Amino acid sequence: MPANTLDAMRALMAPHSVAVVGATERADASSSFVMKNLMRFGYRGKIIPVHPKAETVFGYKAAPSLSALDAAPDVAVIGIAADKVIAALEEAGSTGVKAAVVLASGFAELDEAGRERQRQLVEIAERHGMAVCGPNCLGLFNLGTGAALYSSSLSTNLEKGRFAILSHSGASAIALGNTGRFGLSHIVSSGNSAATDISDYLEFLATDEATSAAGVVIEAIREPEKLARAMEKMHAVGKPVIALRAGRSARGAQATAAHTGSLAGSHEAYRAFFKRAGIIEVPDMDGFMETATLCLSLKQRPTKPGVAIVGVSGGGVAHVSDIADEVGLSLPDLQPETVAKIKTLLPPFATPQNPLDTTGVVFANGDIYRDVLHSLADDPSIGMIVAAQDAPAGLDDFCASEYLGIAEAVSAYAHTGKVPVVFMGNLSSGHHPAIEAKLPDVPVLRGTKSALTAIAGLIGQNRIVSWPGMATAAKKSLPAGALTERQAKALLAAEGLPVPAEKLVTSADAAAEAAKTLGFPVVMKIESPDILHKTEAGGVKLGIASEAEARAAFETIMASARAYAPKADLRGVSVQEMVTGGVEALVGLVRHEPFGLGLVIGIGGVLVELVKDSAFGLLPIDPARAETLIGETKLASLLDGYRGAPKADRRALAELLVSLSGFAACYGDDIEAVDLNPVAVLPEGKGVRILDALIIPRRKG
Amino acid sequence: MPANTLDAMRALMAPHSVAVVGATERADASSSFVMKNLMRFGYRGKIIPVHPKAETVFGYKAAPSLSALDAAPDVAVIGIAADKVIAALEEAGSTGVKAAVVLASGFAELDEAGRERQRQLVEIAERHGMAVCGPNCLGLFNLGTGAALYSSSLSTNLEKGRFAILSHSGASAIALGNTGRFGLSHIVSSGNSAATDISDYLEFLATDEATSAAGVVIEAIREPEKLARAMEKMHAVGKPVIALRAGRSARGAQATAAHTGSLAGSHEAYRAFFKRAGIIEVPDMDGFMETATLCLSLKQRPTKPGVAIVGVSGGGVAHVSDIADEVGLSLPDLQPETVAKIKTLLPPFATPQNPLDTTGVVFANGDIYRDVLHSLADDPSIGMIVAAQDAPAGLDDFCASEYLGIAEAVSAYAHTGKVPVVFMGNLSSGHHPAIEAKLPDVPVLRGTKSALTAIAGLIGQNRIVSWPGMATAAKKSLPAGALTERQAKALLAAEGLPVPAEKLVTSADAAAEAAKTLGFPVVMKIESPDILHKTEAGGVKLGIASEAEARAAFETIMASARAYAPKADLRGVSVQEMVTGGVEALVGLVRHEPFGLGLVIGIGGVLVELVKDSAFGLLPIDPARAETLIGETKLASLLDGYRGAPKADRRALAELLVSLSGFAACYGDDIEAVDLNPVAVLPEGKGVRILDALIIPRRKG
Repeated sequence: MPANTLDAMRALMAPHSVAVVGATERADASSSFVMKNLMRFGYRGKIIPVHPKAETVFGYKAAPSLSALDAAPDVAVIGIAADKVIAALEEAGSTGVKAAVVLASGFAELDEAGRERQRQLVEIAERHGMAVCGPNCLGLFNLGTGAALYSSSLSTNLEKGRFAILSHSGASAIALGNTGRFGLSHIVSSGNSAATDISDYLEFLATDEATSAAGVVIEAIREPEKLARAMEKMHAVGKPVIALRAGRSARGAQATAAHTGSLAGSHEAYRAFFKRAGIIEVPDMDGFMETATLCLSLKQRPTKPGVAIVGVSGGGVAHVSDIADEVGLSLPDLQPETVAKIKTLLPPFATPQNPLDTTGVVFANGDIYRDVLHSLADDPSIGMIVAAQDAPAGLDDFCASEYLGIAEAVSAYAHTGKVPVVFMGNLSSGHHPAIEAKLPDVPVLRGTKSALTAIAGLIGQNRIVSWPGMATAAKKSLPAGALTERQAKALLAAEGLPVPAEKLVTSADAAAEAAKTLGFPVVMKIESPDILHKTEAGGVKLGIASEAEARAAFETIMASARAYAPKADLRGVSVQEMVTGGVEALVGLVRHEPFGLGLVIGIGGVLVELVKDSAFGLLPIDPARAETLIGETKLASLLDGYRGAPKADRRALAELLVSLSGFAACYGDDIEAVDLNPVAVLPEGKGVRILDALIIPRRKG
Repeated sequence: MPANTLDAMRALMAPHSVAVVGATERADASSSFVMKNLMRFGYRGKIIPVHPKAETVFGYKAAPSLSALDAAPDVAVIGIAADKVIAALEEAGSTGVKAAVVLASGFAELDEAGRERQRQLVEIAERHGMAVCGPNCLGLFNLGTGAALYSSSLSTNLEKGRFAILSHSGASAIALGNTGRFGLSHIVSSGNSAATDISDYLEFLATDEATSAAGVVIEAIREPEKLARAMEKMHAVGKPVIALRAGRSARGAQATAAHTGSLAGSHEAYRAFFKRAGIIEVPDMDGFMETATLCLSLKQRPTKPGVAIVGVSGGGVAHVSDIADEVGLSLPDLQPETVAKIKTLLPPFATPQNPLDTTGVVFANGDIYRDVLHSLADDPSIGMIVAAQDAPAGLDDFCASEYLGIAEAVSAYAHTGKVPVVFMGNLSSGHHPAIEAKLPDVPVLRGTKSALTAIAGLIGQNRIVSWPGMATAAKKSLPAGALTERQAKALLAAEGLPVPAEKLVTSADAAAEAAKTLGFPVVMKIESPDILHKTEAGGVKLGIASEAEARAAFETIMASARAYAPKADLRGVSVQEMVTGGVEALVGLVRHEPFGLGLVIGIGGVLVELVKDSAFGLLPIDPARAETLIGETKLASLLDGYRGAPKADRRALAELLVSLSGFAACYGDDIEAVDLNPVAVLPEGKGVRILDALIIPRRKG
């Protein structure tokens, strides 16, 4: 679908006038919730209840229909049952309403009739250029203007702020909106997101002055490229986006499918997409909460990945380091100068290292703590400091007061410190309020795992590359039917992929001639579309070292294959260059909708499924990405000369990945999967060879 | 060290009289903190300040020395500097004081003098049978009696309850004591735990009527068998024990070593120990908090591992399922009868499955929710129900009231429900108080990850087997010096481990004879303590199929080896049964102090280090444990007939593990490590063969 215009999105997200279609005072009607929310949150735009007969609704003058209005409202909230929605939406579109919120369920999440209804909804929205929130949603709430187009109770405790929540799940929107940890600019529960999805909302938020960061709770992405483009706009204005995906496990996906009818792809592909689009993925709601808090309160982004951890207890900093290790934070060793400086600040029994236990001496003298922070910030490998300090909410004021000096030291450091500092407690149940009060300008995080996950997410969100389009290759079609290994290799070779030299022969003499030309030793394999298991059929001979052997092998192979499968179409024998040695890699393409084909790379050979050593990357793959993907696998250690083996030709392997990405650009529409296993990665300078290749054509329909 | 007597532990943990040695009113003195804590918490036992000159301290009549007292107090708190502690402790012991708390630092955590001081402390404690908390600790607090022998401020908000915290880390004890989530019976900060460690405290807690569960924050275990015995006592009285270990990562271990001087072993071994001893390991403080809450509030232990998840939102239950999957909870499919029953309760658009989205219909009618819970409880595969419902603390009362019906339904179910139910919110920031108030008899957990980790921990703590002693095998000694592969195999074979049949020969004729006796084909290998890389030396020939080949091979091998290493001690050629096929496993022994040798099992061959597929088990290994360990590896899939291969002889492999455990019982004291790689696991009924064996003697000193 085309993106909504910004004009339509503004009408939806910051309307000056709202019509509530089906408005009634009946307590259980969704429209009455909307009316009450608008009143309760003091919406100052125009409110127009639309009802065929009522004079007024909750005291507001009602109109009999949208068409009866002098001027079209910005947004129409359609608060009527699913079967009446289409007509109402058509009326809204034709009278010039720019946006709508469709609350009712009974669309694609329900049955075939609902799916048809949803198709009509999308068609109307597109035809009129309307932004439509929903269907099957709670709606949206602009906290700045009080435009609470929301069909569920909204808490009056909701705090105005700079974070926007966009959620496929209404329940998650409510939970994350009411953490009390950060203020909100918008809450959007977009339900089935039929015509207007996360991308459209983000496009708006990129322009929204009230918003400085956003969090999305996502079940499925339908249009990754559109979302990637929206992310570019968010990045351009420096607004981070957090994503929590529900349904990443098989069980979870089943639950969301039952719920919204979305077909969820593999989470591996989602993860690759989030990474590539610079979206900070969080593992759970606590991670969402801490990451949102961090994004909103950290004034200075870390420019180096190294983190220093400081605390007042050996056991405490050890625990924080354990979790830092588990979430993949880098805790660099301190430079000798840093160690020397810290030695002058701390008592002799302290050990200046990272993580750093300052010992209890800082309780009596907070300046020491502050000076330690400055010393750490001067270390060239440190990009961020985590001041880990518990001062639990349950303490009495007297006990809490013992930690005030540390909080003051952190706050004092933060004003002039070279690298950003985060104050973190190990308990998610929170800090004593007196401590938090001392830290107005410092991100204060809770719960070791969630806090460090948030920090790792922010540091890892490294947006250097932009989202590239697929190479504009000439599209080609695969030949119809199943492909033999030889056909697959020929197609790959034609696109520049390295396969062993080979020749198909149909006589013993030709076999001998071919073997001589290729150079001994050679491999000979039966060529038949009907024989998948060549070895079982006696159709493979290795290490053929002379013309005589080649002749004999031809006859044996043909005879064995004929005996094995009397009706098989035997096309001859393929004589191939024999490749020995090298590291066995698996390289493949696999389809994960909505992302299309992605590339898989890992250790090859028979253990491949078991070892589960693979990295996944979305296409296209350029040389830098190829290198990164290889580096994410255990294969990389093998390539580096594992257990004294020679270094393998890693660069040639990277080139193969790029070529396979190019192959996908030509043939991708016809391909379900490609499996190159093994690919022999020969010693440096000797290149790579695809020893076996399987191309699985795309299932049509 | 011997365990403290229960009498001494009672004197320490529940003293009737306390002497504070070095008592003073000086504000910064640790003894003054102790005095003030005793007063503040209304300790009703006798308080005796000990000071050489003072008449009174804080109004309490002082004694000039412990020896000057008419009757020995139960416990002496030694509140003086490290260099004076030994004399004071000796005086306490000799005057009949049963227990002491040594607060000062300056012991093993500091330097060699401190280590000597700590040795003296232990000696005195043992000689007098004194229980000694510390040194380098905050001390302990009995909330029931107000015996606050604690050198740091204790919050007056601390709630009395049934949970005991034992911590090597003072800071962690404070943090976990003040979560406000559960009440406490005891807090112990045991510091260096020189004479009295976690085991001793647990022995006491097993008998303590005020305590029903305990949590330990542990840096290192010194005496695993003693701790295992204490755990037996806790299990016997049904008191669960939770453990959080600080220092499980390399960085973390470094931090605790700097702090307490403890030498931490591999966390893999700790994990195996916790599992075996039935200790519930938690990953972080949040996990500790939720697990403690669960242990204290769950009245009925689940008897089946299957968990059902229920919520009111598709996205919500999907998210919970994702995390359940990640923490290893089992979410079984529901039986057809359960599905049919739930279908009658929920509207047609609901999908009866596990996880279950009841849909919003339950808001209007809580009875439906309650009936759904009963239906799930009737399912034979469900052992526990998680009612996942967010009702965040930040909601206003009106919004929160919408969730009361669900809370009431859960509470109503809990009173008669067949299987236990837990109420869980996704946010660790907590539930609205009105919701918690409705659930007095239901465990209420916070934060998806921590809550489900707690549930998985409790379900996984499956104490079927008791801690077995090592088999009482006759101790044997390894021959001195390095062992050849053949020597290693001979030692293994003598203890019943399956090695290929072989014979050492020193002539070509003897080689032919041996090969004939063993049966063709055979393998021949050079035998020399000086040649480690036999293949490189031309010292290995495979697939020898006739007597003539055997004769030729003998000559070739001897000549090649002589050429390769002219000065080598060539002892002849080993003629061996040739083993082909089978699955390659790695089996080994590895030393992780303080647990001694443990057993490692995983996929064998050259990729072993890379694949990192291994399970680790503490010795001894019985057949059931052997089977469990194999099941924890990816090797298990290979053994089961991976990719159409025949099933391998898993039982024979299990027997090998048991035999290797027996081997360790004989030779363990002399062994640093054993590496059997590969072990060929032949098809079912054909047994296993150790193809290569390396025994590394223990480093002495």
